[in-house]
Amino acid sequence: MERGTAVALLHEDRLFPAEEGTRAIARRLYDGIRSLPIVSPHGHTQAGWFARNQPFPDPVALFVQPDHYVFRMLYSQGISLEELEIGRPRIAEPRRVWRLFASHYYLFRGTPTRLWLDFAFQELFGLTERLSEATADGYYDTIAAKLATAEFLPRALFDRFGIEVLATTDSPLDSLADHALLRESACSGGWAGRILPTFRPDPAVDPAFDGFAANVTALSALTGEDTATWKGYLRALAARRHYFKTLGATATDHGHPTAQTADLSELEAAQLFEAVVNGTAGAAQQELFRAQMLTEMARMSLEDGLVMQIHPGSVRNHNAQIFARYGRDMGADIPAPTGYVEALRPLLNRFGNERALTVILFTLDETAYSRELAPLAGHYPCLKLGPPWWFFDSPEGMTRFREQVTETAGFYNTVGFNDDTRAFLSIPARHDVARRMDAGFLARLVAEHRIDEGEAVELSRELTYGLVREAYKL
Amino acid sequence: MERGTAVALLHEDRLFPAEEGTRAIARRLYDGIRSLPIVSPHGHTQAGWFARNQPFPDPVALFVQPDHYVFRMLYSQGISLEELEIGRPRIAEPRRVWRLFASHYYLFRGTPTRLWLDFAFQELFGLTERLSEATADGYYDTIAAKLATAEFLPRALFDRFGIEVLATTDSPLDSLADHALLRESACSGGWAGRILPTFRPDPAVDPAFDGFAANVTALSALTGEDTATWKGYLRALAARRHYFKTLGATATDHGHPTAQTADLSELEAAQLFEAVVNGTAGAAQQELFRAQMLTEMARMSLEDGLVMQIHPGSVRNHNAQIFARYGRDMGADIPAPTGYVEALRPLLNRFGNERALTVILFTLDETAYSRELAPLAGHYPCLKLGPPWWFFDSPEGMTRFREQVTETAGFYNTVGFNDDTRAFLSIPARHDVARRMDAGFLARLVAEHRIDEGEAVELSRELTYGLVREAYKL
Amino acid sequence: MERGTAVALLHEDRLFPAEEGTRAIARRLYDGIRSLPIVSPHGHTQAGWFARNQPFPDPVALFVQPDHYVFRMLYSQGISLEELEIGRPRIAEPRRVWRLFASHYYLFRGTPTRLWLDFAFQELFGLTERLSEATADGYYDTIAAKLATAEFLPRALFDRFGIEVLATTDSPLDSLADHALLRESACSGGWAGRILPTFRPDPAVDPAFDGFAANVTALSALTGEDTATWKGYLRALAARRHYFKTLGATATDHGHPTAQTADLSELEAAQLFEAVVNGTAGAAQQELFRAQMLTEMARMSLEDGLVMQIHPGSVRNHNAQIFARYGRDMGADIPAPTGYVEALRPLLNRFGNERALTVILFTLDETAYSRELAPLAGHYPCLKLGPPWWFFDSPEGMTRFREQVTETAGFYNTVGFNDDTRAFLSIPARHDVARRMDAGFLARLVAEHRIDEGEAVELSRELTYGLVREAYKL
Repeated sequence: MERGTAVALLHEDRLFPAEEGTRAIARRLYDGIRSLPIVSPHGHTQAGWFARNQPFPDPVALFVQPDHYVFRMLYSQGISLEELEIGRPRIAEPRRVWRLFASHYYLFRGTPTRLWLDFAFQELFGLTERLSEATADGYYDTIAAKLATAEFLPRALFDRFGIEVLATTDSPLDSLADHALLRESACSGGWAGRILPTFRPDPAVDPAFDGFAANVTALSALTGEDTATWKGYLRALAARRHYFKTLGATATDHGHPTAQTADLSELEAAQLFEAVVNGTAGAAQQELFRAQMLTEMARMSLEDGLVMQIHPGSVRNHNAQIFARYGRDMGADIPAPTGYVEALRPLLNRFGNERALTVILFTLDETAYSRELAPLAGHYPCLKLGPPWWFFDSPEGMTRFREQVTETAGFYNTVGFNDDTRAFLSIPARHDVARRMDAGFLARLVAEHRIDEGEAVELSRELTYGLVREAYKL
Repeated sequence: MERGTAVALLHEDRLFPAEEGTRAIARRLYDGIRSLPIVSPHGHTQAGWFARNQPFPDPVALFVQPDHYVFRMLYSQGISLEELEIGRPRIAEPRRVWRLFASHYYLFRGTPTRLWLDFAFQELFGLTERLSEATADGYYDTIAAKLATAEFLPRALFDRFGIEVLATTDSPLDSLADHALLRESACSGGWAGRILPTFRPDPAVDPAFDGFAANVTALSALTGEDTATWKGYLRALAARRHYFKTLGATATDHGHPTAQTADLSELEAAQLFEAVVNGTAGAAQQELFRAQMLTEMARMSLEDGLVMQIHPGSVRNHNAQIFARYGRDMGADIPAPTGYVEALRPLLNRFGNERALTVILFTLDETAYSRELAPLAGHYPCLKLGPPWWFFDSPEGMTRFREQVTETAGFYNTVGFNDDTRAFLSIPARHDVARRMDAGFLARLVAEHRIDEGEAVELSRELTYGLVREAYKL
Repeated sequence: MERGTAVALLHEDRLFPAEEGTRAIARRLYDGIRSLPIVSPHGHTQAGWFARNQPFPDPVALFVQPDHYVFRMLYSQGISLEELEIGRPRIAEPRRVWRLFASHYYLFRGTPTRLWLDFAFQELFGLTERLSEATADGYYDTIAAKLATAEFLPRALFDRFGIEVLATTDSPLDSLADHALLRESACSGGWAGRILPTFRPDPAVDPAFDGFAANVTALSALTGEDTATWKGYLRALAARRHYFKTLGATATDHGHPTAQTADLSELEAAQLFEAVVNGTAGAAQQELFRAQMLTEMARMSLEDGLVMQIHPGSVRNHNAQIFARYGRDMGADIPAPTGYVEALRPLLNRFGNERALTVILFTLDETAYSRELAPLAGHYPCLKLGPPWWFFDSPEGMTRFREQVTETAGFYNTVGFNDDTRAFLSIPARHDVARRMDAGFLARLVAEHRIDEGEAVELSRELTYGLVREAYKL
């Protein structure tokens, strides 16, 4: 990583508190952690990029098309997805789209997207003048030229970013062929970047998921288990978890609409399973099934040691027209109020006191931080709190998280940072923002004499590197 | 506006962040916007004041009686509305009431009311010693004397405040006679202050409104449409919207208990309409009718171009005794939890992707800022976010709004400031607070190197003057 | 209190804002209030400590065992309650437990528990090196030795802390024998520490309370009233309230799951009472009964003048295994979303406008501060807002409270600080934190020219000493 070589887009002191004494402490703390390896335990990059190691095609395919943070903002301001060529397999006029993006770059003022992009522009591509209509072509040419070089191949960037480990997020039906290739490569002395799958069973445990019944059937083909029965279905899931583990997985991930859990009798669960696979279950039964499956997954985690991540509270595909035309993940998922205290009770009553279990909770409803999540994580041995997620992976979002969580749950019931990104080039930028914000938060505690600077030094390393490795068993 | 002539009540640096470097930036930003014209697109002043241009009667009628922020605080501390002569057509003992107010002025420490009042006291009346029991009579005499002068007539104040445009809020049954008079005056070379009506149809679209059925009937008389039928009723509303437009209206306003919308078939809607006008509809049907009417209003906005404002979430007239004795708007409206994600879905599924539609959302439930409103406005082309409303039209309220909204929705999905006031003299004070708070917020972003100062200069003008004119089509 | 004698654990400027000008103001404000007497109107210390004046047994019994803030954090990080000897009548290996605690003391970084403990360690025991595995034994010996001295007897500490008045929280069935002893002692020229009971009727008004029916019967034995009838039951409660008043009580306290109130007819109430005492009432009827009892308590408060405190919103005993094994108050009470606007309406419609009634509201759902509590308290004469409670009795919690409440409710609808503690030695520490945070908050308002420093001086005294005495009638 080239650091500090230019000052136009990025200031050395960016994101630190303005007060001089506090800033000086933040600077010292940050200097101690800025070069620590990146541990990325949760994200949405593709193992195939690294398995195949092909160049990224062009600036639009890299920065605009895959990043719903980018195109949702443009869309909100009246730019159509057609104009942006979103959803097209091949971009017909990348330079035109890039100019459109560039001329609206001012819309991102005050957003984390702007921080991440500027970081990539300057640190990776050496660009130091702000992106705008005037600089659009220069940017395009510079980026396109560099993308064609060996230094910008996925593996080279992975190494340059200082990534120690990177987890992807994968369907239980995924063959993980790319992960297997990468593993073989490493074992046979080839490129050794550590890239792990994560078991995300939603397609096969959420009855509302497109193709749920077919997915359950597919599970059978993959495992040889009879997934027409409740017991066979559970065995098939356990088998897939085991397969993921053989390729390095240390965690599962669950993206349910709510945090609801359930603890049904085996008979009730079996009957419910029959209803959901037969498609006779209504919305309430589907919700109950998802709830039961969280508890089943916790049970399996206790057996196989996979860390469990719960990401609840997103209303998916809110915009019906966009969903009909473009499908999922088009920037139209909107958070909803999310309760944890009653929702998690069935699971916690069953497994909450197990010290060998780790359940990491995330939220899109920040009201839960101080009211529910910190009190729960500050009591139950199995619970930890994931970092601010999605819209809250931002300077203000991180500040609210630390301010609302720390006093009740402490620092040690949190698990460091997740970049959770589809945009590979944003990874170092996002980790840099998190490190700076943590340095600033700790600096304030030091400046207000709430902790000593020596403690802050120790904590800053834990928040950057120690806690994530321990929580995710990396 | 006399500025800076005295220092006792108002400090030149008030509301700016204390940190010296940040404050210096805030000062520079504020200096660039402090004298921009006032655009007031939403409020509750009366067109009649300007049409008739009569002097305001006395200090109590000006500062105490119309301002529920003032008397609700006094009431909460044990002063009866009788003692304050609230609700009387003519105040019997204005000096006694003024003294009562003055001797309790300390109660307003830390509130925005105090900021607004001090601004008016000093900037308009030249008073520089704090209002208290000791200064009560001096204040009274000074204010009363000035109110009798030509400089304090409504039109003179309007001009002195630098108001470019001022919108009132009006019943669909209102003849708008005062607006018509003002328009004639302007056209015939008389006073040219630009004062526009806003179409607020609640009395005729909310079945729970006092006299709803009679209001629907009155619509018929005003428009010649048969409002006993669903179609005629809709035509009558469209006709009134058109009439408002002829007098300059650019917006509608909707003060529903919730943000619920609906998208019924024409038959269902017609049957529901019959139930609500016949008075046979229960609470759930009344709510459904209001919900349907928001969607109908959006449809009409798409046709006639009126900007749509939705102000949901106030539990009106919470205090039954006060309501029974004094009626509406007596400081006893209390916010309630308000959801937007599911509530707005029917309207958004129908019109959410229309770039020609503008729907401005407000909230009294700040938890919606980061969880629902910013994500929605950062995606849907028709949505914009109104400024912090009512209790949150305050320094801390504005800070929370910017901190919780900007990172997801950006600045350009917001619409500048609303003063939303019944207290005419508070208008420059309120806009001044907003300008200072925006300058301070932007200054922090600059000091933390999150945006450049040049960008902040541009943004400060947009937040003060550009965005409001564009969003409200002024 | 020894102040400023050491600097290792506590910095003189701790908790003040870092910005130099603001900090200087905070220091001046704090200097004016740091030595004011402690008024503690709500807490959970035991009158018996002072009645018997026996030494506290050992460091673990003093600092670890009674403090669920301490052991919940240790438990959340995998230390079992067995290892901590929680729940044992006598600690078998206090030094071993102390070492366990000491070696995990780093977990409390960033929490208020750490602030309180460090205060006690330094200010009371003269310890100035941080507690850790290395210093564990030195701490143990020092504390144990001092606890054996006359200076560390409960009454001596009470006097040394500068406590003017201390309220306990007591069952309506409590004989208050210890309070009676203390009162006799004072009247006969003995120790004169002012310790008052508080009437907490939950065991006899909440049908979900363990032993509710037996408690109602016990009320009869204590009062001679026939508590098998609704009227007799109410008379019995009134009699107990009267008895508490004779021993100095000025307040009641109500820890219901929600803030729901009701205003049933006498017949309905009598029938409901019959159902709950007979055990035939379901959950909804039990909730309705609690709701009705809040209104009954308000009625009695209007008669006997006792100030009413409502502490709603805690889901008690969330951890079923811990509850089954250890019982109540084991750190597993978790907050839940709590509504006030509709919940309080029945009580407020009945008594909300009574100036002679004082109802102090608390919350564990901070979203209610700006949305519901401040608007309600800023209108209803009977309502006041209690300080941030439990998990929010913390620097960030206090900041959020002031920032979210003050602009709408002002300072004068709040009631100063509650320490609400079972940990006697934390009382001066907790009040010190509150004084520092209030000084810092007021200093910011002064630095931002929102109030004058003279006003801040006055307010700082009110927030520390004046408002609590007035609100609680002390």
